[in-house]
Amino acid sequence: MRKLLTRSTKKIGLPPGALVHVGEKRTETVRISVLDYDEHHIEEKTQSTLDECLAFKDKPTVTWIDVTGLHDVKILERLGACYGIHPLVLEDILNTGQRPKLEDFGEYLFVVLKMLHHNVGKDELVSEQVSLILGSNFVISFQEAEGDVFDPVRGRIRNAKGRIRKVGADYLAYALLDAIVDNYFVVLEKLANRIEQVEEELVARPTLDTLQTIHKLKREMIFLRKSIWPLREVISGFQRLESSLICKDTEIYLRDVYDHAIQVMDTIESFRDILAGMLDTYLSSVSNKMNEVMKVLTIIATVFIPLTFVAGIYGMNFKYMPELEWHWSYPMVWGVMGAVAISMVVFFRKKGWL
Amino acid sequence: MRKLLTRSTKKIGLPPGALVHVGEKRTETVRISVLDYDEHHIEEKTQSTLDECLAFKDKPTVTWIDVTGLHDVKILERLGACYGIHPLVLEDILNTGQRPKLEDFGEYLFVVLKMLHHNVGKDELVSEQVSLILGSNFVISFQEAEGDVFDPVRGRIRNAKGRIRKVGADYLAYALLDAIVDNYFVVLEKLANRIEQVEEELVARPTLDTLQTIHKLKREMIFLRKSIWPLREVISGFQRLESSLICKDTEIYLRDVYDHAIQVMDTIESFRDILAGMLDTYLSSVSNKMNEVMKVLTIIATVFIPLTFVAGIYGMNFKYMPELEWHWSYPMVWGVMGAVAISMVVFFRKKGWL
Amino acid sequence: MRKLLTRSTKKIGLPPGALVHVGEKRTETVRISVLDYDEHHIEEKTQSTLDECLAFKDKPTVTWIDVTGLHDVKILERLGACYGIHPLVLEDILNTGQRPKLEDFGEYLFVVLKMLHHNVGKDELVSEQVSLILGSNFVISFQEAEGDVFDPVRGRIRNAKGRIRKVGADYLAYALLDAIVDNYFVVLEKLANRIEQVEEELVARPTLDTLQTIHKLKREMIFLRKSIWPLREVISGFQRLESSLICKDTEIYLRDVYDHAIQVMDTIESFRDILAGMLDTYLSSVSNKMNEVMKVLTIIATVFIPLTFVAGIYGMNFKYMPELEWHWSYPMVWGVMGAVAISMVVFFRKKGWL
Amino acid sequence: MRKLLTRSTKKIGLPPGALVHVGEKRTETVRISVLDYDEHHIEEKTQSTLDECLAFKDKPTVTWIDVTGLHDVKILERLGACYGIHPLVLEDILNTGQRPKLEDFGEYLFVVLKMLHHNVGKDELVSEQVSLILGSNFVISFQEAEGDVFDPVRGRIRNAKGRIRKVGADYLAYALLDAIVDNYFVVLEKLANRIEQVEEELVARPTLDTLQTIHKLKREMIFLRKSIWPLREVISGFQRLESSLICKDTEIYLRDVYDHAIQVMDTIESFRDILAGMLDTYLSSVSNKMNEVMKVLTIIATVFIPLTFVAGIYGMNFKYMPELEWHWSYPMVWGVMGAVAISMVVFFRKKGWL
Amino acid sequence: MRKLLTRSTKKIGLPPGALVHVGEKRTETVRISVLDYDEHHIEEKTQSTLDECLAFKDKPTVTWIDVTGLHDVKILERLGACYGIHPLVLEDILNTGQRPKLEDFGEYLFVVLKMLHHNVGKDELVSEQVSLILGSNFVISFQEAEGDVFDPVRGRIRNAKGRIRKVGADYLAYALLDAIVDNYFVVLEKLANRIEQVEEELVARPTLDTLQTIHKLKREMIFLRKSIWPLREVISGFQRLESSLICKDTEIYLRDVYDHAIQVMDTIESFRDILAGMLDTYLSSVSNKMNEVMKVLTIIATVFIPLTFVAGIYGMNFKYMPELEWHWSYPMVWGVMGAVAISMVVFFRKKGWL
Repeated sequence: MRKLLTRSTKKIGLPPGALVHVGEKRTETVRISVLDYDEHHIEEKTQSTLDECLAFKDKPTVTWIDVTGLHDVKILERLGACYGIHPLVLEDILNTGQRPKLEDFGEYLFVVLKMLHHNVGKDELVSEQVSLILGSNFVISFQEAEGDVFDPVRGRIRNAKGRIRKVGADYLAYALLDAIVDNYFVVLEKLANRIEQVEEELVARPTLDTLQTIHKLKREMIFLRKSIWPLREVISGFQRLESSLICKDTEIYLRDVYDHAIQVMDTIESFRDILAGMLDTYLSSVSNKMNEVMKVLTIIATVFIPLTFVAGIYGMNFKYMPELEWHWSYPMVWGVMGAVAISMVVFFRKKGWL
Repeated sequence: MRKLLTRSTKKIGLPPGALVHVGEKRTETVRISVLDYDEHHIEEKTQSTLDECLAFKDKPTVTWIDVTGLHDVKILERLGACYGIHPLVLEDILNTGQRPKLEDFGEYLFVVLKMLHHNVGKDELVSEQVSLILGSNFVISFQEAEGDVFDPVRGRIRNAKGRIRKVGADYLAYALLDAIVDNYFVVLEKLANRIEQVEEELVARPTLDTLQTIHKLKREMIFLRKSIWPLREVISGFQRLESSLICKDTEIYLRDVYDHAIQVMDTIESFRDILAGMLDTYLSSVSNKMNEVMKVLTIIATVFIPLTFVAGIYGMNFKYMPELEWHWSYPMVWGVMGAVAISMVVFFRKKGWL
Repeated sequence: MRKLLTRSTKKIGLPPGALVHVGEKRTETVRISVLDYDEHHIEEKTQSTLDECLAFKDKPTVTWIDVTGLHDVKILERLGACYGIHPLVLEDILNTGQRPKLEDFGEYLFVVLKMLHHNVGKDELVSEQVSLILGSNFVISFQEAEGDVFDPVRGRIRNAKGRIRKVGADYLAYALLDAIVDNYFVVLEKLANRIEQVEEELVARPTLDTLQTIHKLKREMIFLRKSIWPLREVISGFQRLESSLICKDTEIYLRDVYDHAIQVMDTIESFRDILAGMLDTYLSSVSNKMNEVMKVLTIIATVFIPLTFVAGIYGMNFKYMPELEWHWSYPMVWGVMGAVAISMVVFFRKKGWL
Repeated sequence: MRKLLTRSTKKIGLPPGALVHVGEKRTETVRISVLDYDEHHIEEKTQSTLDECLAFKDKPTVTWIDVTGLHDVKILERLGACYGIHPLVLEDILNTGQRPKLEDFGEYLFVVLKMLHHNVGKDELVSEQVSLILGSNFVISFQEAEGDVFDPVRGRIRNAKGRIRKVGADYLAYALLDAIVDNYFVVLEKLANRIEQVEEELVARPTLDTLQTIHKLKREMIFLRKSIWPLREVISGFQRLESSLICKDTEIYLRDVYDHAIQVMDTIESFRDILAGMLDTYLSSVSNKMNEVMKVLTIIATVFIPLTFVAGIYGMNFKYMPELEWHWSYPMVWGVMGAVAISMVVFFRKKGWL
Repeated sequence: MRKLLTRSTKKIGLPPGALVHVGEKRTETVRISVLDYDEHHIEEKTQSTLDECLAFKDKPTVTWIDVTGLHDVKILERLGACYGIHPLVLEDILNTGQRPKLEDFGEYLFVVLKMLHHNVGKDELVSEQVSLILGSNFVISFQEAEGDVFDPVRGRIRNAKGRIRKVGADYLAYALLDAIVDNYFVVLEKLANRIEQVEEELVARPTLDTLQTIHKLKREMIFLRKSIWPLREVISGFQRLESSLICKDTEIYLRDVYDHAIQVMDTIESFRDILAGMLDTYLSSVSNKMNEVMKVLTIIATVFIPLTFVAGIYGMNFKYMPELEWHWSYPMVWGVMGAVAISMVVFFRKKGWL
């Protein structure tokens, strides 16, 4: 519920561009790490100070500044001032309820993305906002908390694997984007596992819990869809963008990540359809069970009610009841009862209830 | 219900441009307040007369005339005549069932918006129409009642906080627009609280009231959607507008408020999905309860009906019933009854009903 | 039902342009009335002959010819010949199952609209086709029956109220269009009243009639939507039209009527949503009632069935039943029964059924 | 079912353009009829040979060749060769599962349409594919079986009624198109009759048959929609087409038939909505009946079960039951029972069940 | 379930363009077959080595290289290097979870398609990814497993049937595309058979299995739709493409295959509608049965419960019950009971339950 509400009311009434961190403070200290590289050399600082990383600004090498933790507004302000970033962009970075988007500020591009992971404790999807600023020779990334999906990218830079060391900052931005989209498939696979589990439960022994799990999964789909849907526009915006920041060669990679984003959306849509079908199955199976319960009641009741009536008749205490005196009455009554019971059973057979 | 009907029938048959106040009279007196400022000076009159405020017209400073209360048609007519406002615009201002819209009249822009608040007494959302007229150096705002969401903007002007004192009337119009959109998040947060409450109720002990609350919330969503949906077009219209009234620098702020409007719409859509899911849950839980009720009835009835039949048999008064005379009949009957009851229970266990 | 079928089969097989009146004959005599005016003079004939009204053709004044009743094909043919109207247009005028549309024939514009009113006798919406032909200095309107929504327009022309006498035929056409659209709000208000009534019924005591009323209202919405939906295109067509017949000043009025048309559509959509919600409420309340009925049955049956069984036991006639002889048996049995009944009631309390 | 599957598997694996007749052979012999006309003369052969009709090719008059029966591939091949028709077009003509479409081959236009009629025997809609080839001075039409909706067109040509004899082949093609679309209204009227019948049944005495008829009608709507929906594009394609084959004057007639096609689609959509509403009504009425059944059971059972219990009590055979000896016990028991029964009835009244 | 998840997590973290085979290894050995032809000669190798087939590269003839089995990454790498294929294309070929797509790389076109077949063992649809690379004089096709739908194409090349030998590589690509789309009709026909079976079952004797089959078929539709939907864009992309690789004459054939693709989509949509209708029918028939069960119970219970009560009354052991002594009491009681039973039956008749 709460996580679907995207904009905090903390900010209401402040002038636009006022820097206030909105969102949980998810990490204790703000950590800045820098990776500066070109084809031939590499320099890495995992625990850098702001001043150190500003020093890389005018070098021709590609610089990746990764800021983890958003609650120290001062750092952002200085970074923004140094790299000439618009106050509204800084505000959006701090405001972690953004919708994924891409904005072109001429000198740099600003991208907001959602990084997803499955919180095992609460058993729900959690999203973390990742903001990227792509300049001519630098990428600045902002994350809310420690732990991300960028390690493979870092590995490739360190080991000079793939094209990444030979090309510019735009390819680095693409690589980060790709890492985030790839991670959606991991999330989807986990959801697929849970859907399959529920499906087996549904066939074997559906309970009210099954229903609640289905509804929970449906809600996760709503959340997922909301986080990922705008991504399409972001990436296709990237492709249409006629910005000198994106070189020709990177476009083909963007097309690739766009395909992946569409695959993610397709899969989410399929999952939604499947969950809707599972809901139908659940309701049908509940209604079938009810039907069966009713049948049992009906069969037992309709067989015995007439018999009990017959027994009641001969339990009456009238003085003049000729049958009571007859010698074969008792076995005859048994016979009549048997006949009634059998004809009832035959009737139910014919109806297909037995 | 009523509030979804947007156009009163009071006006039917009048020529277009005829000024008639349509809507409740929500305030006793019409109050005009003026805020005139530039970077260096500021002049404020909270209880101004019409003549006083017309005096600001030709000054180069930015003038914000705020009219609260719409039932005095005369005032509107004079304001309109002085600022050259088209009669249809004045008509739209008075007719409080407008759809949010933006119209470009060359010399000025006309914007209709909906300001929402939650009426605690009636426990429902209430919308108030706010009309803005943006000229080259003035903004005129019209409200139906006292009390609005513009106090932070007023504060910023008075304290010269943010950019607002340094820039033109277009930025002021943006600031008012932004204040209204920001307020939607407050409304949404309240709705989110109510949805969460209902959700807990739904899990704990769903009643018919729960259902009615869900339906009520659904209807609030319809109302909300109807009030806010056109806003998208309004703001994107602002952005596309090639009007000399909007300067380049303000456009980036409009993009920001556009993002917020889309976030509001996204959240409303998510809430609708969630409410639909809650309705399903409610119906399933009702049907589950029914099922449980039926099971209890069936178990009790099917266990005791055969036993009662057996008791009925030996309650018959036939003269010749050999069993009645036997010494161990009574305990034997108990034994038979016990066996029947136990086998019934075993049967229900196997069916999974116990 | 019938009224949703738009095209009669009477015309099948005739060549296009063949003039056959299709639809009910709703009025006895065909009546032609003429209103000819400019800023300074006005001439009105409420019962004109065809020849009289043809005389106005070449005058520079604005002429409004209003034809009521369509079954006299001859009159139409002569009018058409005189004003140079295409045979297909005449065919469309006679064929009262048209969809609202706008067609530009260069020399004149042809507009088809639906005028709605609520037939009190049949308690349903009835639509009447109104066709307008707008030439450079004339408007010809065709109606099926006496009684229309144009009286305010006539009044304004007679009293020279508003702009209408100072401007051309295009403004007259707009005024007629506006009168028709305004009337939709009257219809919507009546529907809103009926929806509110049904809503109260739904809360107080829903019956099968309530359901049928809901379905009837839903169908009225389908009918309404079908009649009004194309209007959007018609009016926006008017605005996009680059015809010399529409002067610049009228465009702003068309924008106004376009806003109204969209408000009508919005309201219809909201009503549909509300009716769908009411259907859900009805079904839930039926199912809730069922549930309650079942609970009462179950409680009564499960409390008394075991007790009746106990009574049955001691109604048996076995010779050797030791309990029968005991002195305190009877009160003890009452005690046992009381205990069973109380524990049942406690059980139901715990289940939340009482 | 079967008829919704549009493409036979007979053709799989053949090269494109291979001529194989796909579909039922609906007529015994292939019949070719020719109508050749201009304003002054007319020549008609209802049973022509291929050679005869090829002779008309180079005359300036308008020639309409109508081929009934498609199973003789040879005839098609020769016609195609003579008139220069692309093999894929011939293939499409033979393959009767085509979707309605329009293709422009420069020298000629190729149109596929669906002619519908109601097969009384099977009580279902049947569609027949009609293909038209429109050249500069000829129209070739292909039908699957004898019997069509073109007789009025033939009549108009023979009697020189309307414009048809004075204008070119494009007008003839329009006239055929119009005849087919007009016939849809006949089909819709028949469906409207059936829907009305079912509706009355639904109110009077709904059975499982009613449900099946509703589902059948829904399926006919799916079929109808599938056959007619693409027509919109076909006709609007005609209008947008900048082909020398269509002269200016015919365009206005195409606009007319386009309006009709949209009316057909509108009506189908309305029927679908109505059928969906009828399904809801059916389900509600079934559930209402169930409710009523349950109420009767509950009232009878809850009134008599306690009474039977009381009777059971005094049927017990305990030696020491003081009430049994009292003189007024029996009438008192009746009194108690009466009181119980009355209070039960009062309770049900209050609940609104009686 | 699983098969709806399109992208494996195996690849996460690898640099783009890294060649890893993702998907089941569906065939033991990688087989390369070559077909090289022009109008006059043909050369075929069904078991070729990589080097052999590279030799055809610079010949002017059309070469079709068909690679079956994707797990040998080396072969792909060499083919890619030789034909100048972009690493991302090779990656997409190996990654068998692609969405159908078309990409234009200037020198060649890259097409991904899904070939479907019905796996009889698992009774479900299985899709196999087919990738095509179309260069100026070659087509390279990649398949996951042995067995395809291209045999008719091979036959036509070998027998020089149709146009295929006279035209270029673009026509070959079209022929392969056409073979795949044609095969969808085979799959749809099988599904149509299964739907018809289920339909008959639904009318005759619907069980929970019927429901599960309906849900299974619905899911197959979701799968089918997901595999085929993007095809539309692919083929229309082909048509819009202004590539020198596609010659003018082939375009008309592409239009044909586009029609077929739309027919497939139409049929899938119709099937979905029909399955939704079948689900409704199933639920209604279950609810009807329930209703019938309840009626039987109600009739039996309400007839006998009052009778049993009467019998109970005269089973009481009061000392002073005057009726017990009367001579005609017993037959009178039978009379009363008969009257009660008959009036009950009459009541049920009137209600329409019997």
